[in-house]
Amino acid sequence: MNVSGFVCTLCGKHYPKQYESFTCEDCQDIGILEVLYDYETIKNTWSKTDLLTSSVDSMWRYLPLLPVKNAPINALRVGNTPLYLATNLAKKLGCGTLYVKDEGLNPTGSLKDRASLMACQKAIEAGFDTICASSTGNAASSLAGNAAKLGLKTVIFVPKRAPIAKITQLQIFGSTLIVVDGDYKQAFELSTKAIKKYGFYNRNAAINPFLVEGKKTVAIEICEQLKFQVPDWVVVSVGDGCTIAGVYQGFYDFYQLGFMDSMPKLLGVQATLCQPLVLHDPLTEEIKESSEDTIADSIAVGIPRNPKKAIRAVANSNGAWIGVTDQQILEAMTLLGSTEGVFSEPAASASLAGLQAALTQGIIQKEETVVIISTGNGLKDIINASKATTPIELTPPTLEALQEFLAKKGSYE
Amino acid sequence: MNVSGFVCTLCGKHYPKQYESFTCEDCQDIGILEVLYDYETIKNTWSKTDLLTSSVDSMWRYLPLLPVKNAPINALRVGNTPLYLATNLAKKLGCGTLYVKDEGLNPTGSLKDRASLMACQKAIEAGFDTICASSTGNAASSLAGNAAKLGLKTVIFVPKRAPIAKITQLQIFGSTLIVVDGDYKQAFELSTKAIKKYGFYNRNAAINPFLVEGKKTVAIEICEQLKFQVPDWVVVSVGDGCTIAGVYQGFYDFYQLGFMDSMPKLLGVQATLCQPLVLHDPLTEEIKESSEDTIADSIAVGIPRNPKKAIRAVANSNGAWIGVTDQQILEAMTLLGSTEGVFSEPAASASLAGLQAALTQGIIQKEETVVIISTGNGLKDIINASKATTPIELTPPTLEALQEFLAKKGSYE
Repeated sequence: MNVSGFVCTLCGKHYPKQYESFTCEDCQDIGILEVLYDYETIKNTWSKTDLLTSSVDSMWRYLPLLPVKNAPINALRVGNTPLYLATNLAKKLGCGTLYVKDEGLNPTGSLKDRASLMACQKAIEAGFDTICASSTGNAASSLAGNAAKLGLKTVIFVPKRAPIAKITQLQIFGSTLIVVDGDYKQAFELSTKAIKKYGFYNRNAAINPFLVEGKKTVAIEICEQLKFQVPDWVVVSVGDGCTIAGVYQGFYDFYQLGFMDSMPKLLGVQATLCQPLVLHDPLTEEIKESSEDTIADSIAVGIPRNPKKAIRAVANSNGAWIGVTDQQILEAMTLLGSTEGVFSEPAASASLAGLQAALTQGIIQKEETVVIISTGNGLKDIINASKATTPIELTPPTLEALQEFLAKKGSYE
Repeated sequence: MNVSGFVCTLCGKHYPKQYESFTCEDCQDIGILEVLYDYETIKNTWSKTDLLTSSVDSMWRYLPLLPVKNAPINALRVGNTPLYLATNLAKKLGCGTLYVKDEGLNPTGSLKDRASLMACQKAIEAGFDTICASSTGNAASSLAGNAAKLGLKTVIFVPKRAPIAKITQLQIFGSTLIVVDGDYKQAFELSTKAIKKYGFYNRNAAINPFLVEGKKTVAIEICEQLKFQVPDWVVVSVGDGCTIAGVYQGFYDFYQLGFMDSMPKLLGVQATLCQPLVLHDPLTEEIKESSEDTIADSIAVGIPRNPKKAIRAVANSNGAWIGVTDQQILEAMTLLGSTEGVFSEPAASASLAGLQAALTQGIIQKEETVVIISTGNGLKDIINASKATTPIELTPPTLEALQEFLAKKGSYE
């Protein structure tokens, strides 16, 4: 393992690699740690050629940059998702070279599989047999699926209001599901107590520093798929802030190793109905709590739990923040699907909506090369997707009626 | 292209490779053609080494065995889905070596992507710009997504009763959607008229002989992933019969090329509420129309349109047919998810239910090596999946209540 230590994102205190707690001893629960690597050792033992000749077809091809001893045995195939050259979409937007990274094709349908599988392997290496989390979303379902495959148990706390669709996936994966008669905060608090009481491994995001390390593999993978040519921009939607922090970390690692000769700029996208990070104070890095009313539920986080890392990722990359409306998100969903055949959930469609807004506002130039990350599969949220479209019924079911219908649409004469 | 000609599955009449119609001129619409290959030429120009050193990471790595001139340019990444060694599941079933092929990780979430992308490429090579189909299911959504990525238009006919979830995916992919004020038969008939009138490319299953050729890549891929070691059984759920026919064809091709030294037995699985193929007459190959009441909607086909090929695939492989109840399907869904982290739609879960029934009935022996194909992603049908599980609410949200709950469950002491 090439980890050299940890640093607190809040106070900057360093810890040796043997340090076992997830958070800073001074800053407590809000003192999220960052994993540090010994890049010199990695450089001496791992080359681009080693990478390019690897036969591993998952996130574990980047093992020297990951905080585990070994890759898991017989795990779900996380990573190795397609990066599509989006020529139809680029033409429609009138912009230059554009790529779409379809993270919805991970095993349980989202980028979170990268973090969850990392959590599973860390738990296995530390001797745990049960992992606990409180979530209704992709974090929970990805944990449940990946843990099941590895023979680990999961205990997941969800609030009463959690939609049946999300609960279903957890139960199919065999989680011990605790539907708490309360709100999200109560579910989270009860999970914290249970973790302590029963000695479960903790997969609550923005506490566990290794989740970001899993997520960073999406950036590394993009880089390899682009044959180490650095794009000008990478666009990603932001909730808690862990994903964009991971994306930054991945590019940073490759840059430190000399695998890339510059860093891309990051565009962080939030829904205007929940955009605490867009509205952060650049000087103090302070954020204000927001409501969580957007349809993009995977990024509806009123109090992001990893704000510093997210804010610094965008700032250090010379990137930008942007907010998009729910209507723009729904339109982007249809645009992405109809031009590139990628069906993305609302939070994932927000990336494209953000790119469109950034092009309009002149933040991103038309000739720049851009990668948008679609973080989750559209099948995860058919209800909201159905709001993006309106089917029209053909009455009566005759060829004549069809001809009239198509002629009106101007489709076929 | 290594196609040598076509043969009618009904009367056996041969046609040269230049033949342009999809069906037999004598048998008309029910005279489905089968594509024939010149295996000697393929053998002389394509070796196992060529295959193993190919850098193509999709179904197009098997191009010499496909009925197209070229692979499509910048298509969705269809194929290259994971084949998991299912040790947890095998342990639970008390059987030997077991694999799960997760076809739900294809771009639009089902095995049908292989057929649809094949249809798209055939359409492109023949100069069409619009493809037409009548379907509410995976055939339609996979066509819509794959066509969108390739810049092809799609016109899709669905009956009024089609659920909104299935319609949504089609609209996100930008199809011209014709919701017919009538039933499935009327939608199909209107699509046939429209294909004729407007000159659309026809993707209606069991008419177009090339769809099976796309589907066969799943078998070829399994074979390569198993390093050419032939499993004893391959289990697949059956609706129209095209998929199991494709699976047979893929293994047959590799066997003809000498890449495999025997053929696996095929277990065809249907839902007992719709099992016309299970109940077929082995002598006459006749089937009787069935009702379509099963929850496994992707295989709910009362009159399979490709019965002969399906029946012969199973017979020629020395395989067997089996029926499973909806309850068995739901139980298999949870079993597969909780042991292997694969969430499969009801029709896909039927494969596992079929394996369980076949083990019980002694059709498959415990020591035999088995591959089950999960044909579609569970996220496609959350409504039915929710029937497989019942969440229990924890009241009040306290650690004491939790301890009591877990103790009752016998999970944690």
